[in-house]
Amino acid sequence: MLQTRVIAPAQGAYQFPLLIKRLLMSGSRYEKTREIVYRDQLRYSYPTLNERIARLANVLTEAGVKAGDTVAVMDWDSHRYLECMFAIPMIGAVVHTINVRLSPEQILYTMNHAEDRFVLVNSDFVGLYQAIAGQLTTVQNTLLLTDGEEKTAELPNLVGEYEQLLAAASPHYDFPDFDENSVATTFYTTGTTGNPKGVYFTHRQLVLHTMGVATVTGSIDSVRLLGTDDVYMPITPMFHVHAWGIPYVATMLGLKQVYPGRYEPDMLVRLWREEKVSFSHCVPTILQMLLHCKTAQNEDFGGWKIIIGGSALNRALYEAAKARGIQLTAAYGMSETCPLISCAHLNEELLAGSEDERITYRIKAGVPVPLVEAAIIDGDGNFLPADGESQGELVLRAPWLTMGYFREPEKSEELWAGGWLHTGDVATLDAMGVIDIRDRIKDVIKTGGEWISSLDLEDLISRHAAVREVAVVGVADPQWGERPFALLVVHEGASIDARVLKEHLKPFVELGHINKWAIPSQIAVVTEIPKTSVGKLDKKRIRVDIIEWQASNSAFLSTL
Amino acid sequence: MLQTRVIAPAQGAYQFPLLIKRLLMSGSRYEKTREIVYRDQLRYSYPTLNERIARLANVLTEAGVKAGDTVAVMDWDSHRYLECMFAIPMIGAVVHTINVRLSPEQILYTMNHAEDRFVLVNSDFVGLYQAIAGQLTTVQNTLLLTDGEEKTAELPNLVGEYEQLLAAASPHYDFPDFDENSVATTFYTTGTTGNPKGVYFTHRQLVLHTMGVATVTGSIDSVRLLGTDDVYMPITPMFHVHAWGIPYVATMLGLKQVYPGRYEPDMLVRLWREEKVSFSHCVPTILQMLLHCKTAQNEDFGGWKIIIGGSALNRALYEAAKARGIQLTAAYGMSETCPLISCAHLNEELLAGSEDERITYRIKAGVPVPLVEAAIIDGDGNFLPADGESQGELVLRAPWLTMGYFREPEKSEELWAGGWLHTGDVATLDAMGVIDIRDRIKDVIKTGGEWISSLDLEDLISRHAAVREVAVVGVADPQWGERPFALLVVHEGASIDARVLKEHLKPFVELGHINKWAIPSQIAVVTEIPKTSVGKLDKKRIRVDIIEWQASNSAFLSTL
Repeated sequence: MLQTRVIAPAQGAYQFPLLIKRLLMSGSRYEKTREIVYRDQLRYSYPTLNERIARLANVLTEAGVKAGDTVAVMDWDSHRYLECMFAIPMIGAVVHTINVRLSPEQILYTMNHAEDRFVLVNSDFVGLYQAIAGQLTTVQNTLLLTDGEEKTAELPNLVGEYEQLLAAASPHYDFPDFDENSVATTFYTTGTTGNPKGVYFTHRQLVLHTMGVATVTGSIDSVRLLGTDDVYMPITPMFHVHAWGIPYVATMLGLKQVYPGRYEPDMLVRLWREEKVSFSHCVPTILQMLLHCKTAQNEDFGGWKIIIGGSALNRALYEAAKARGIQLTAAYGMSETCPLISCAHLNEELLAGSEDERITYRIKAGVPVPLVEAAIIDGDGNFLPADGESQGELVLRAPWLTMGYFREPEKSEELWAGGWLHTGDVATLDAMGVIDIRDRIKDVIKTGGEWISSLDLEDLISRHAAVREVAVVGVADPQWGERPFALLVVHEGASIDARVLKEHLKPFVELGHINKWAIPSQIAVVTEIPKTSVGKLDKKRIRVDIIEWQASNSAFLSTL
Repeated sequence: MLQTRVIAPAQGAYQFPLLIKRLLMSGSRYEKTREIVYRDQLRYSYPTLNERIARLANVLTEAGVKAGDTVAVMDWDSHRYLECMFAIPMIGAVVHTINVRLSPEQILYTMNHAEDRFVLVNSDFVGLYQAIAGQLTTVQNTLLLTDGEEKTAELPNLVGEYEQLLAAASPHYDFPDFDENSVATTFYTTGTTGNPKGVYFTHRQLVLHTMGVATVTGSIDSVRLLGTDDVYMPITPMFHVHAWGIPYVATMLGLKQVYPGRYEPDMLVRLWREEKVSFSHCVPTILQMLLHCKTAQNEDFGGWKIIIGGSALNRALYEAAKARGIQLTAAYGMSETCPLISCAHLNEELLAGSEDERITYRIKAGVPVPLVEAAIIDGDGNFLPADGESQGELVLRAPWLTMGYFREPEKSEELWAGGWLHTGDVATLDAMGVIDIRDRIKDVIKTGGEWISSLDLEDLISRHAAVREVAVVGVADPQWGERPFALLVVHEGASIDARVLKEHLKPFVELGHINKWAIPSQIAVVTEIPKTSVGKLDKKRIRVDIIEWQASNSAFLSTL
């Protein structure tokens, strides 16, 4: 390490730790009438948010929660979740945001692995909790969350009901300072194999991520994604990377915030209309669902800015959203990255270019957020050129990446091999630094010595007028190693078969966009494509289904 | 300290230090054609900026500069200064930005006190440097900066000329990682008494300040102060708090940047027009000068966004600028605070209010930037209420405050008494958290047991049509302790005397805005008001002048 000049602070100087409590100041200072809204159940102002956070801190402290303890939350997206995202870390504890869409066995695993001491349970999950309660090894107390009238439930060691306890608690809490490298949040990410893995983020990381997001959303090309006059509603769950960290940003900027509970499309559209929502974030499949839901049919979504991520954004969806007035901005990140890594940004030349070219860049993963460093490497860990052609695993350095998987030293070392975080994504980088995600490493289809990106193929197939949704996976083939297989959902009244799809793809082969091995020789047309608990295409499940259909010669299949 | 959960990073995990080199990535990545412009002398793109910074790092390293050394710069605002603001800290050294408007004795003092090892000297300052060179105790080498043809000068231990050395150096430098708490910059601030005091900022502080500024400029109320499509030109000197840190922000966002050299109003207006400048920052006196310069007379400055700080902004100047198309945003900070602390921000209610009320809030110091904590205290250190009435010394906590004065333990302890940075400014805070600076503690006029804010009085006096500029100071009075004295510059062809001024102020007494003791019984009308080296009213000097005029019964004086 270089011998730089490091001066000890003056006697009495306050060394400012980057703590989550510092994000809570703006709204309560100068946007006092701005509201936090929970469906049609509750609305209150920022000063009340601060007060409720202090009350919750007192409730937890009185229930025995100590700094360093882990407190789990099982709830839909609500004002309560927002309060937990502040109060729990602000007393020095760790909030474990439980993915309620995992199987009971997986939830049980994560709760024991995270060593949860205290659990806040929504009444909708009481049955689920009861089923695993007997096997929980570290939980001491529970607290009931409810939208209904019932103020108790059959929960072991129940401390009480959230609103009743808050009402009885003191609205003052002197939140302490502590090490900014203290863990603030944790949650589990599920891979295709093995147990869920716990990622974790510190106060410092979350504060820096919040400022990084605000920097980007305030300055991006010709767009101003977030001003203090925006109204925010999340459409990715709070249990999933803290709703992409945007509740922290919205609170820091003092925005009106709208929490929709469960993600029922009609409710989302109604809240959007009634609360004048102008800023959201979601994954492509949810946006798809939104655009097609009944309530949305006659809506002009003009002025709604949505950050889209989680999976690649295809041109068809971008254009469909745009036709409805929605301004989409693609972004990239993952559970391990807090999550924001990059965001579509059009530089001066691209902004002046053709609409077609602009869209090409609007749907890519975009350029790294300030401070973030991105590179691509080959299988041996060699850096590859940023030439827009070379494909390699995307690796990252940034101030807000998980420093490992909780109590998984081997997987952690793998994640951080060579001092870079390995994303498991195959990407190209162009000369502008634009990241273009080509595929998950494990989803790339290896056929006849060629690599075919399942994402590229999904994009081309989605351009056929009949196609509403598509997933492409590789299936084992004795001759070619693997062959692409397309799973399709078609629009009402439309139809497609393997031959029609081949005709649709042929011109792209002729243009050199794909090689001829990329044309699927077998497809299946279904009514729904399996999704993971966070709304991504569940390719693991799709592969299992295909094997079953092929074995039973299912009617879903269409073969060339 | 609380026992929170702190987890050691995984084997191999990269712990991201907040270093200035990280701010340099965006422009060179995706705004490659954006330019850095130096007057009509030079223009180049971001990739060239990165390359030149690497070349400069090599020049310095080869000249023997080591991590921990202090490197001084004596230059006008230029591309070279920008390069120094990156290259010097990026090799682990400290850049000392010398205030070239100080007296030679003061410059000598600061250079010896800062222990400067290496000095970059603009040819305009060679004479000045020669005059003090014999008394410099730590300087080993010098380097010549020049816009002209001459590539050498009579400088002791001259290494060479900047452009020639850069051209000969390698364009590659592998900038190292090191402790983010390493000092990156230092400069000296002059008080009314004693020697200049050295403040200093670390890499961590400058990165956080940069993100804090970007957060604010991107999200402020209805305004978008900075988008990546803006063109930046500083109009506060780079030696003064790194041009308020905005060059770092502009570089992080990849903006076109225009450096004007010396602050000649006609040149500034010409650069503004030709380079399409849309974002600047300056102090009120410079703005005044700009609006009145010859070249500006027929210009419509529509779309020019200017952050104004350094001294209070009065309504008359705000309106004059607005009438010319300039959108002013008031901000507050000081040398000790890096500098940004607060920025005018109108919340939803104020934006919906009357134009008159909006202006009232547009010219105040504004609300604290996210993460910044502000409070007011009385003389005994007790916190005062944020009621818009109570006046006290403004004290601060933020992630980017100087941790002391260099090698001044006593003054440092005073600065940080009670764990808060003492600004020396008297302010009120209202319920919204809006900071309203009333005066410097030492400029408050104590008369007959009442405190009169010299700033309030300056604001009211400036509303008289004849008044172009005004400074109010307290002068000793045997009966009242102190009495206000007004120093005025009038518009061409206009005139004013003490009696006319009294008639102008009477209605404000009747309205209760000021008490009757606030009406000056003596004024002076002059052609120029003395300013400090950074363009603020030099009240210390004004007091000296007044005593002299009173002793000689000067013709400048007008008495009731």
